[in-house]
Amino acid sequence: MASRWRSHIHIIEGNSMRYELYYWPGIQGRGEYVRLALEEAGADYADVARSERGMAAMMRMMESGKGTPPFAPPFLKVGKIVIGQTANILLYLGSRLGLAPKPEAGKLWVHQLQLTIADLVLEIHDTHHPLGPSQYYEDQRGPAKKRSEEFWNERVPKYLGYFENLSKNNGGSYLTGRRLTYVDLSLFQIVEGLRYAFPKRTKAFERDIPGLIALHDRVAARPNIKAYLASDRRIAFNEDGIFRRYKELDS
Amino acid sequence: MASRWRSHIHIIEGNSMRYELYYWPGIQGRGEYVRLALEEAGADYADVARSERGMAAMMRMMESGKGTPPFAPPFLKVGKIVIGQTANILLYLGSRLGLAPKPEAGKLWVHQLQLTIADLVLEIHDTHHPLGPSQYYEDQRGPAKKRSEEFWNERVPKYLGYFENLSKNNGGSYLTGRRLTYVDLSLFQIVEGLRYAFPKRTKAFERDIPGLIALHDRVAARPNIKAYLASDRRIAFNEDGIFRRYKELDS
Repeated sequence: MASRWRSHIHIIEGNSMRYELYYWPGIQGRGEYVRLALEEAGADYADVARSERGMAAMMRMMESGKGTPPFAPPFLKVGKIVIGQTANILLYLGSRLGLAPKPEAGKLWVHQLQLTIADLVLEIHDTHHPLGPSQYYEDQRGPAKKRSEEFWNERVPKYLGYFENLSKNNGGSYLTGRRLTYVDLSLFQIVEGLRYAFPKRTKAFERDIPGLIALHDRVAARPNIKAYLASDRRIAFNEDGIFRRYKELDS
Repeated sequence: MASRWRSHIHIIEGNSMRYELYYWPGIQGRGEYVRLALEEAGADYADVARSERGMAAMMRMMESGKGTPPFAPPFLKVGKIVIGQTANILLYLGSRLGLAPKPEAGKLWVHQLQLTIADLVLEIHDTHHPLGPSQYYEDQRGPAKKRSEEFWNERVPKYLGYFENLSKNNGGSYLTGRRLTYVDLSLFQIVEGLRYAFPKRTKAFERDIPGLIALHDRVAARPNIKAYLASDRRIAFNEDGIFRRYKELDS
């Protein structure tokens, strides 16, 4: 009996190598950077919180307060380990999914770029929520307009100019060289998101970032990404996510 | 001749294991989380940009666009490697300086906590710059007041409540157990900074976070930290940094 039980545990642990992603259902949000990595690699994963039971499980894991509870979604469960913070999840997945170099220097460099993208994502969120994440957009329209202005005048040129330079200087097809990394997938998502949220401003700005646009197109053409984008696993952009289309912020 | 030259190079490389920290002179800012780790560990480091020549070198390294240029300070040079993003620098230093576990799961957990602190730091910055980092505070006083209100009503309880729970649940002297990590040093800095920037609000809130206050005091009493805080290497808080004392935001 004992040995049957042990072998049952063994089977559970075997199955548990499946990746379980926990993220708010209904939005791309920060979960999308993880989804793109899992999809590109053809990894076996479940987007847990897209079912009602999964959503309840996600809330329980955050509220339990025991072990290593994440502060916020997304988080990834792999066997018994729970990993939170988008860039940290990608750090973990990168070398396992072949989406980052294994040597330490390369690994840290790719992670550093992802952390810079994380800062950009926070600033994108602040364009519609400058007075804070717990207030409604409708109550901060004026400040959102000002923040969006500053974002496009100062911050977009600084961030995207930085990545554009990198794409020019390394001479490879992808940002850090010949091989695709999770950073390329995230930059694809940034371009997609800016096109959705600020169609006019983005169109005008694209001429300044030909390298990034070419990178975006290269990522979009990859078979697994193409199949993912056409599937119902890809949630549509909407006004609950990070990238929101508010016409008044786009002019 | 050739062999003398080689031995000279060897000496340079030997010396270069000294850590070179590059950060804006005159403020604690994000550089402070790195300084605290280097100081606690008694590491040999130079705070390069505090000299005029060092400052010029820092600007050149960012503007060169070659290799792995950082997006912004702080960054750390170790031999030939340049590492940017505060949390990434601490990830690199953590296991080397004995300030983080070496096994992967523990390393990722401590890094995840640091990334959550990084999010909090950005929100602290937004209390005085809700309309964006390139505008003057004087031009955004009204929105800053609103953002500070939201920060103290919603965000501080959420972030510090999370860390307070962790400090209670693990039963050790430090946040993740018996051993000090760089996360403890960073939480010390958060408490110090909030006390500086929002003395009234922080005083009222401290009764809700006895575990974090005890942790703060334990860090402050460590000999290397104590010596550092009393030295002129510790820059005083001021209104160019992340934590700014604007009386009107503290009531």
